[in-house]
Amino acid sequence: MSSSAKAVVAYGPYQNGGWKLQDVTLRPLRDDEVLVEMVASGICHTDLHFAGMESGYGVCYPRIMGHEGSGYVREIGSKVTVAQVGDPVLLSFSPCQACEQCRTGHPGHCVDFNPINFEVRSDDYRVAREASSSSTEPTIYGKFFGQSSLLSLSIVNEASVVNVRGLVNSREELALYAPLGCGIQTGSGAIIQAAQAHENDRVTVLGLGGVGLSAVMGAKLQGCRVIIGVDRFESRLELARTLGATHVINTSGMASLSELTEEVKRITNGLGTTITLDSSGFPPLIREGINLTSFKGKLIQVGVAPATATLDIPIFEFMVAGKQYMGVVQGDVQPQIYIPRLIRWAQDGKLLLDRIVKMYPASDFADAIADMQSGATVKPVIRW
Amino acid sequence: MSSSAKAVVAYGPYQNGGWKLQDVTLRPLRDDEVLVEMVASGICHTDLHFAGMESGYGVCYPRIMGHEGSGYVREIGSKVTVAQVGDPVLLSFSPCQACEQCRTGHPGHCVDFNPINFEVRSDDYRVAREASSSSTEPTIYGKFFGQSSLLSLSIVNEASVVNVRGLVNSREELALYAPLGCGIQTGSGAIIQAAQAHENDRVTVLGLGGVGLSAVMGAKLQGCRVIIGVDRFESRLELARTLGATHVINTSGMASLSELTEEVKRITNGLGTTITLDSSGFPPLIREGINLTSFKGKLIQVGVAPATATLDIPIFEFMVAGKQYMGVVQGDVQPQIYIPRLIRWAQDGKLLLDRIVKMYPASDFADAIADMQSGATVKPVIRW
Repeated sequence: MSSSAKAVVAYGPYQNGGWKLQDVTLRPLRDDEVLVEMVASGICHTDLHFAGMESGYGVCYPRIMGHEGSGYVREIGSKVTVAQVGDPVLLSFSPCQACEQCRTGHPGHCVDFNPINFEVRSDDYRVAREASSSSTEPTIYGKFFGQSSLLSLSIVNEASVVNVRGLVNSREELALYAPLGCGIQTGSGAIIQAAQAHENDRVTVLGLGGVGLSAVMGAKLQGCRVIIGVDRFESRLELARTLGATHVINTSGMASLSELTEEVKRITNGLGTTITLDSSGFPPLIREGINLTSFKGKLIQVGVAPATATLDIPIFEFMVAGKQYMGVVQGDVQPQIYIPRLIRWAQDGKLLLDRIVKMYPASDFADAIADMQSGATVKPVIRW
Repeated sequence: MSSSAKAVVAYGPYQNGGWKLQDVTLRPLRDDEVLVEMVASGICHTDLHFAGMESGYGVCYPRIMGHEGSGYVREIGSKVTVAQVGDPVLLSFSPCQACEQCRTGHPGHCVDFNPINFEVRSDDYRVAREASSSSTEPTIYGKFFGQSSLLSLSIVNEASVVNVRGLVNSREELALYAPLGCGIQTGSGAIIQAAQAHENDRVTVLGLGGVGLSAVMGAKLQGCRVIIGVDRFESRLELARTLGATHVINTSGMASLSELTEEVKRITNGLGTTITLDSSGFPPLIREGINLTSFKGKLIQVGVAPATATLDIPIFEFMVAGKQYMGVVQGDVQPQIYIPRLIRWAQDGKLLLDRIVKMYPASDFADAIADMQSGATVKPVIRW
């Protein structure tokens, strides 16, 4: 079978105008792969980050990005057991399923996370031309995050598939869940799963993009008594309030970030927050996060910092206070277990996805990206 | 009642020859205090550290140090409920018992730990002279760690008392347990309580003094499958082996500490250790501790680093690996709960205190300190 699809193909960094909507053909499916007719695909800053590089992390072009999506299974490889043809599925990252972390329930910290999800060069697609010339068209690489979901029909690693058969009632609902497999599980999972937040926790979330706002929703779900949202944009702060933030702080006018700590301390009777989550990746803000975290509190790193950035921790002071600094990828969740929980929360009105998701037709993918970059849209989702 | 006692009085930093064995008199007991006839008192590097300062942390002289000890209650204040006259007790640090950490089972991270334990100036003792002149003798400060245990009869905060009535069978046994209330709970507690070590853990202990060796014993108690002891002294490494270390590494001949990581990786099939405990406080070794810690592993700080030392953590790499850096004081234990467990382990032959403890008569306190400083004795204990 030689299938064809509509795809957003990256011929180079996005900022150089290198992305195009094109017709592509697909190679035949392998034993451990699933062919998914995509209903919707989330777009994330990580797509632009990795398709914005000139080198490193296995950068290669042309390539199809996208690592959050939902759809229906149209074909399965001979060894696939996770889904059957017709099943609705969500897509998430691919773990190796063999290393110590994968075997102990921490696939987001798989030792081969980078090679499998970022650095893969999978020869999956070609530009569709006249039948006579198609065999000579250049390769288009797929399998970014095991899936490359920015196309209408995707070749997906079985390990990236989350089967939601019996959980989803309509195609529209499935479209709304497209971003659950990355940004939303990352933010909410870091609070719920990694930090094990509970009602006595006081939470600060640094940065209120899709991940940060999902962290706010996670804290609200856990009943945390104080939830402080921090950002530079008033619209994000207002949105955070509607999603559960009990307090918001705008850092845009601050002469020094120490003012942020003062404000958090003021809100928390001088104690600071027991859980501080950084989704900004901005080193000065992370550093201030140590100060505004309470004794025995956790500073959780989920934001992607520049590759060479370091955090200077004052050893003795940090020890006396009993603080913790922890790195968390993908919320440290097992998507096959955690995403069904997210879906039930969404269905119960506890996870307000419609407040952060905006749908765009595939032909408007450039508008979706522009709106994400300007902050007008928190989580753009492409409909196929 | 005006009692008298033999005391090791610090008139200045130890290295300046400022400590003397003297007769002192005691002021009357207050409502919330316990008078303890000391049987034995541990000496620790922390005593020398805080009585080695010229300034800071409320430094004051003359003062009585000592913060590990055991004895029998001879008198109690009117509001004391923790013990009765005649009870055998161990002494530990004093928490405020009111702050968030104290109320949630983390008294080692009490917000007022420093003022209560280090910076206190309690006007408790005077040098004993002829009766006619005693009222004009200068103050000798007590209550270091709520207890100042380096004397034969000590005025102790009720909060520092661990009642071991019914648990200890003899005066000799009580003497052996003198150091449980600080160094031994710090090292073993960090592994057992703070890191929640279990049999699948691979542990590295950096520095093998009393705290580090207690961490080795803690890891052995938990059945950890790999326990790597790291030090510069062969005698400490040999002792670590007898206490449960499965491997030892001597860093003294290394051109670079990266060799330490290579060796730990070699022992652990390239994975690194899931729990790395630093008891050295030596910043280059702590920094290397990040590298030799496995994905999802914890680096636990218990060693006292120089006050201004910082640890540079590579943010992105640390996050991807899902590592944690955590500060732990006093093993993050509740002494009144944890010390009875230590005693039962010692009685069952699972905590080999006699391998690390050496007894000295009070008159030989200078020999005890010299042996601790040279490494000839891991844990010197003064008998009264």
